Formats: sequence, structure tokens, C-alpha cells
Amino acid sequence: MVEECIVNCLPLTDAEQQSFRSAVPEIHQEFVGDAKQRNDMVWLCHVPQELREKATVVIGNAPASEIKECKNLKWLQTFSAGVNSYTGEGILAKGAKLSGASGAYGQAVGEHMFAMMWTLLKNIHLYRDNQNKHLWQDEGPVSTPDEVKVLVLGTGDIGSHFAVLSKAVGCYTAGVRRNASQSAPGIDDMHGFEELESLLPQSDVIAMSLPSTPDTRHLINRHTLSLMKPNAIVLNVGRGDAIDSDALAAALHDKTIQAAGIDVTEPEPLPEDHPLWNEPNCLITPHVAGGSHLEATSRKVLSIVLENMKRYAAGEPLLNESK
Amino acid sequence: MVEECIVNCLPLTDAEQQSFRSAVPEIHQEFVGDAKQRNDMVWLCHVPQELREKATVVIGNAPASEIKECKNLKWLQTFSAGVNSYTGEGILAKGAKLSGASGAYGQAVGEHMFAMMWTLLKNIHLYRDNQNKHLWQDEGPVSTPDEVKVLVLGTGDIGSHFAVLSKAVGCYTAGVRRNASQSAPGIDDMHGFEELESLLPQSDVIAMSLPSTPDTRHLINRHTLSLMKPNAIVLNVGRGDAIDSDALAAALHDKTIQAAGIDVTEPEPLPEDHPLWNEPNCLITPHVAGGSHLEATSRKVLSIVLENMKRYAAGEPLLNESK
Repeated sequence: MVEECIVNCLPLTDAEQQSFRSAVPEIHQEFVGDAKQRNDMVWLCHVPQELREKATVVIGNAPASEIKECKNLKWLQTFSAGVNSYTGEGILAKGAKLSGASGAYGQAVGEHMFAMMWTLLKNIHLYRDNQNKHLWQDEGPVSTPDEVKVLVLGTGDIGSHFAVLSKAVGCYTAGVRRNASQSAPGIDDMHGFEELESLLPQSDVIAMSLPSTPDTRHLINRHTLSLMKPNAIVLNVGRGDAIDSDALAAALHDKTIQAAGIDVTEPEPLPEDHPLWNEPNCLITPHVAGGSHLEATSRKVLSIVLENMKRYAAGEPLLNESK
Repeated sequence: MVEECIVNCLPLTDAEQQSFRSAVPEIHQEFVGDAKQRNDMVWLCHVPQELREKATVVIGNAPASEIKECKNLKWLQTFSAGVNSYTGEGILAKGAKLSGASGAYGQAVGEHMFAMMWTLLKNIHLYRDNQNKHLWQDEGPVSTPDEVKVLVLGTGDIGSHFAVLSKAVGCYTAGVRRNASQSAPGIDDMHGFEELESLLPQSDVIAMSLPSTPDTRHLINRHTLSLMKPNAIVLNVGRGDAIDSDALAAALHDKTIQAAGIDVTEPEPLPEDHPLWNEPNCLITPHVAGGSHLEATSRKVLSIVLENMKRYAAGEPLLNESK
């Protein structure tokens, strides 16, 4: 039997390392994270060569090639919500558990989407463009959340966080999810995907935080865009391929919808010559809504990992465990 | 005794004209407004030459020179919240009442300030600048309202609206007003102006909607800016002269505060060569928060005027009457 050894790649302060040690004092832990990365968008990490054989647990999104070499691995806990990179054949040692940090990112990503909505509702993006030309110029009528019907596509942690904020400032919120009988915080009215086409013509803001699956690919396309109101605002913080970028660029160019705010694109990064860059009513941020730019997110990741370490030591089922 | 005649300069639809007629059927009304102006930032209006003698009531911000010629005027109701332009000696006929549309603008202006706050909290303004260069580039850590302490300077209709929104998304809100014993919706903790200097070092967002008075002129200056946190965000939607623009530009340039979002400047329009235009963390909008860009504002103005017309006809005290 191999002795337990946790290779902890989190960027921790000394005090935090101490609390991770105290959480499972019976298990040896190697701290290999770099505290300087704490506010970086992505925490890059590696399992050092000499620890791969020893590691029974890895905390962190190390390259799959390194995880493959951890022959005695019994559990991999990622920083990320998704764990796709490790589900392929032959990456994890046989029988190893895999768990993500789902639930840590909803606040940061939901808030970013909410900020994009407000920017677009009040034409702040156009005033910023004018500012760069030193131009004191009115950009016309604006909208109020009081009169905005938000349609949230994907009502998980992110969509639900966004919905709670939107409801708090007066929006009416509807949601679309696979299982419409399941409610979600912040959603007034839940629907299934089969109702999408009847909901789009009634919605002012379409807020997307969908995972990338064959079903969601190009869900927003030339046809579904054509069903939207002329004042519709499309927001996307999930996966870029949920929107057909060319169709979106055309709809914005032809003003068949009002605006879009996207933190994810297809492909990523958005090519320098892509037409979306130049659409004044397309607001683009470079996949920064999530990651570790909000200290609250980092704290949540740490707290999920800490809880899972205790559960692992006690032989209890893990949070966010992939089956 | 002159026969009553209301010169109504509101930009009304036919249906709305009808409801204004029905409100005071006993008084003759002349409708001289232009419905096409409805979504314009400012409703320009005039009392036609031939109606000035007849007018006993004017609804609208006609030029003071025209109001002066309304010798039989008994009441002037403005579209604007402020009525300063008409309080000078010899503008209003002796004994004429004067009332504004206070209360109609808090939603629009408070929301605009809230949108600027979110833009700055999430670095959306910097991503917009990058977008214009087709640049896919991370701009670093962001903040969450959960951890934001907002200090609202001036807790009238606008400040209070902003505070309610901020509280709804998790901010802690303190307020400063002349009479600290008077509460205001959305404000957790009210203070007098004498406490300003002790409050500034504890505040993350300083949200200003102060009237222009000798007391508020340059309230935010080199000294008060120096008391703020390095992550402080200053917002101003009241009057431009409440901030010393040069001191603000210097503070932003030297990064002694984080950002500013201003809809009002000193002077206005901001001169093309003013250093504030070029500060990346100064977000400038050209005095557009108020006015009639939000249909909800127009509806509130109409409803205040309608109520006051009924009160006038009944000889009751008017809403927002200047004493």
C-alpha cells in the first residue's frame, strides 16, 4: 500500500497552507503552488517530476500528460468547474476519483454578465467610444430593467446568479433548462428547450451560460436570431460555440437585434479580422468573466477543496464528484 | 378677470392630450408641444407670441424671456426638476406659482450611475478600449458589490434610487445629507457633511448627486481625494462643479484612486483638450443620465403635471411648489 500524499498546487498564503495542513493532519501534503498567481486569470500548475509517483491526490489543473504519470493517483480535484480535460481514456489511474469546483464561479461570471447588460442598457459602450474621440455627443434613448424581460438560457450556478441580480433590480426573469420541472433561484418562470422559439420573440435580454454540447452548438443562429425583438440584447458567458458568430455579426450589422455582450467567442481568441470586433453594438470581453479575477471566487475554490479533503480523509462522497 | 388658459408645451400623443383635457375640462388648453421630441434628451419649447398675453398657466421650460412676457401668468410648471432659471427678479409675473418635476428623474439618473459603477467594477471600459484595437487581452482583478461600501453624497431622489439598487445587489450603503436625522430609502447609515472626511477613507464607491450650491462647489478636491482608498471609485451625476476636475485628473493619473464615472463636468461640454478625456480609468458620459431618454421618466413627468393641473383647478397646494 502506497502512503497517502497530497500534491497541492493551490496558490496559498502561509496561513492558508496551515489551514490545509490542519484539515487533514494525518495525510502528508506537498505544497507546490505559487502564491504570486493568486489574482491571475488562470492558476497554472504542475506536478513536479519527483512527486508524480508518490502523488495519491493532486489538487489542481496540471497538464493531462503529467496526471497520466501519476500511477498511484486516487483522486484529482480541479480548480476549474469543468473536468473535461481529464475524462479521456488512460489519463486518470484506474479507479481514481475526479471532482471539480462547480459552484465557485457563478458569482464572478454572473456578475460580469450583469455588468455587460447594464453597459448595453445605458449605451455606456457607445459613450466610451465617443470619449476616445473627445466627443460630447448624445446617443439617444435607453432602457430600464423595470421593463426588461430576461430569458436565461442555462440556469445553473452562473445563470441563476445572474437571474437573482436581475430580479433584484426589477427585471422579469424566465429560464430555459433541460428539466423544466426543476426550479432555480432568481427564475420567475421555467421552461424546457422545446419552448425556446416561442420565448425568444417575447424577451428583451437573452442571457446565455450553456455548456458546450452537441445540443447547444449554434443554438443561437440565423433562424433563432430572426425570432428576436429589434431591441433584443444577447449575452453569452458560457461557451462561444452556442452562438453562430457570423449570424450574430450579420444581425447586429443589419440591426435586426439591438446589441450583444459576449465574453466567449468561436473561435477563441477572436481572430483579429473577425467582423464582430467592429460592430459598435457588440461588446466583447476576452473570456475573463470567470477565472480568479474575483478574490471571492478564489476563496470559494479553496473552501470547496478544503471540504473535499476532509471528505476524502473520512472516506465520504466528494462534492462535485464525476460519476 | 382674465380667462384661464393653459399653454401646454409637453410632447404629447393625441391620446395623452385627451387625458390632459379630461383632467381639467373647465380650463381652456392650448397644446403647442411637438410629439416628435418625446425621446429627445431635452424637450425644447416655446410659448407662441400670440399666446403669451393669454397664458395664465405655462407647462414647460420655455425661455425665461418668453415667460417674462406672460404678464397674466399665475403658474409655471417645468419639465425639469430644477426651477432655478425662473427664480430671478422679474421673470415670473407677481404672485405666480412655480413648480418643478422633482421625483421624475431619480430612476433614470440613479440607474445611469449604477451602470457606470458596474462598468468600472468589472473593467468593462478597458475591455471596450481593447476591443477597438481588436485586442484580446486580460485586464486583471475585478471587484464584487458584496465587498463594496458605497458612500452616497446627496440622498435625494437620485442618490436614494442609486442606493436602493446598490443595496439590492449586496453593497453596504452609507449616506451624507444636510439633515442626518432624516432617513432615505436604500441608505443603511446616514451622516452629516461634517463627517465626510472620516467616511471617505472607508468607502469604495463615492456616489455624488449633489445640487450646485456654494457649499458643494469643489467638495471633492485635492484634499478630499487624498483621503480616499487606492481602490476608490468616484461617481458624479449631480453637478459638475462638485468636483475639482483638475484634481480628479491628477488623482487618476497618479493612481491615488482607481476610477471615476462622471456624467457631469466642469465646464460642460468638457473642452476637447481637457486631460480627463484621456484618463483610461475616467469614464465620461455627456450629461445624458437624466432628460427624457427613459420613457419611464417622461411618463413620470406627465403624471406629476397631470396631478398638479387637477390640484391647480381645485385650488389645492401643488406638488414640488417653490416657496
